[in-house]
Amino acid sequence: MKRYVVGVDVGGTNIKLGVVGPSGEVIVRNSFATKPFASHRNKLIAALSREIEASIITAGLTRRQIAGVGIGLPGLVDFEKGAVRFLPNIPGWTNVPLKSILQKTLKLPVYVDNDVKMITLAESQFGAGRGVKNFVCLTLGTGVGAGLILNGELYRGEGNAAGELGHMPLNEQGPRCNCGGWGCFETYVGNRALFGLASRVMKKPGMTTPMMFALAKKGNKKALFYWKTAAERIGNGLVGIVNLLNPRLIIIGGGVSHNEKFLFKTITATIRRRAMRLQGRAFKIKRAEFKDDAGIIGAYVLVMNAQR
Amino acid sequence: MKRYVVGVDVGGTNIKLGVVGPSGEVIVRNSFATKPFASHRNKLIAALSREIEASIITAGLTRRQIAGVGIGLPGLVDFEKGAVRFLPNIPGWTNVPLKSILQKTLKLPVYVDNDVKMITLAESQFGAGRGVKNFVCLTLGTGVGAGLILNGELYRGEGNAAGELGHMPLNEQGPRCNCGGWGCFETYVGNRALFGLASRVMKKPGMTTPMMFALAKKGNKKALFYWKTAAERIGNGLVGIVNLLNPRLIIIGGGVSHNEKFLFKTITATIRRRAMRLQGRAFKIKRAEFKDDAGIIGAYVLVMNAQR
Repeated sequence: MKRYVVGVDVGGTNIKLGVVGPSGEVIVRNSFATKPFASHRNKLIAALSREIEASIITAGLTRRQIAGVGIGLPGLVDFEKGAVRFLPNIPGWTNVPLKSILQKTLKLPVYVDNDVKMITLAESQFGAGRGVKNFVCLTLGTGVGAGLILNGELYRGEGNAAGELGHMPLNEQGPRCNCGGWGCFETYVGNRALFGLASRVMKKPGMTTPMMFALAKKGNKKALFYWKTAAERIGNGLVGIVNLLNPRLIIIGGGVSHNEKFLFKTITATIRRRAMRLQGRAFKIKRAEFKDDAGIIGAYVLVMNAQR
Repeated sequence: MKRYVVGVDVGGTNIKLGVVGPSGEVIVRNSFATKPFASHRNKLIAALSREIEASIITAGLTRRQIAGVGIGLPGLVDFEKGAVRFLPNIPGWTNVPLKSILQKTLKLPVYVDNDVKMITLAESQFGAGRGVKNFVCLTLGTGVGAGLILNGELYRGEGNAAGELGHMPLNEQGPRCNCGGWGCFETYVGNRALFGLASRVMKKPGMTTPMMFALAKKGNKKALFYWKTAAERIGNGLVGIVNLLNPRLIIIGGGVSHNEKFLFKTITATIRRRAMRLQGRAFKIKRAEFKDDAGIIGAYVLVMNAQR
């Protein structure tokens, strides 16, 4: 009966909605810009409930077929209490009891969680991590984060804040990080660092990773050198987690992961060279299977797991 | 009926045996030197089974009261297959199917595991980690290792090799480590590094951590400075795991942990200063409750969990 979920993926730029069915298929999609609502919390909540209702109707479903609504947000989310604690890129969303607010208006079960955890759940149930008990799902972008599936379960930690792989320090005297630490992985492989490296390598300001990818495809030597350097940085940063967690799989998602060809071999070789013997042989790297739909599909898994 | 376990803790120096009862109490203890047996695998196996039999008799128990035998070893152990893969400090113990050999002679269920994992199990069930769902059990000594209790369960990873906290790199250009990597945590806080630091601080060769502890107790300024520096090193090395795993507790065991007074405050302050806000507030540091008996008590938990 209740076999569908409405998934919502709140990003800094866009808010995506989708209705997801039992095989992880997205049967209806919709999206709108975040900006007009960024500092208007009540307006956004009203828009969300309107769009959720609309998407159920568009999908040709009745409310009785909906198991619940899952919402992923980019920041610190208290999954247990259903509250948004802090979103670094969406001002005004501090300590919002989103679950209880939306449950009242929608009269459907609502679950909220951190967006990277939702992506990880999607890859675990329907994607590159299917059937894998121990894996790390890394997202590379402006921010660098990860979801951890350990002993077959999503690992949340004490405050649902586990997975901050981007904030493992690689050098105690390294550059200061937004998080307050020093020399974090993100300061070496986040978009800002990789764009900066691109501009330095090409001796030209304003270079981006997509530009470097295009150049590398054409065989540009500097661009190939750039990707080798970037892959070594990523590999170096993953050695610690490979030794510590002895995972079977590292799934890489986010913008940079589209450049699989120029990255994965060097990342793997760098880790194998520096990691411990057993751990260095036990892992593989795979690209995330889902891109734009990952959060929405993860919402399906979140809701279904919570109701099991 | 079967309420007792014979625990064996194989160390590089001594082999300890104990019979453990249902509250984790050790009712009989015995130990002998490892060295005479180090390269005589069959002799050691014979001695082990003799001593195990003897300890059951000494305890006044019958074999029908013994649930099984748990053996902890310092190195890579395949828990599933019951085989010792590689022990860095005990030569000649590569790929030994210890479980099946001993089960044949003893006619009792035998389980083998890595020693740090056994210590972690002991602290989890009977010690400082009682009732805690997410914690890291760090052992500081010649080697630096850790056991991880995550979502209430021991986390083993793919090849039972998870927990190598001592081999998380803190500086890709740091000193070469025995493990093959560079700048590992162990190269900063393992005994060799801490003894070296002690000799440099005191401008005197041959200084050890117990000597520095004695000096600090008397108020020696250099020794106090030494412990502050050591604690900062330990704290710096733990920032990454605090951000990544968001644990509630870090249990510290091993020789250095006896110096709690000179260490724990600075370790905590260093982590709080450098870790992310939520993670930095969520954890506490506690000293391991068990010392010499930890491995034997952990054997009890290992055997009982395996038979649950």
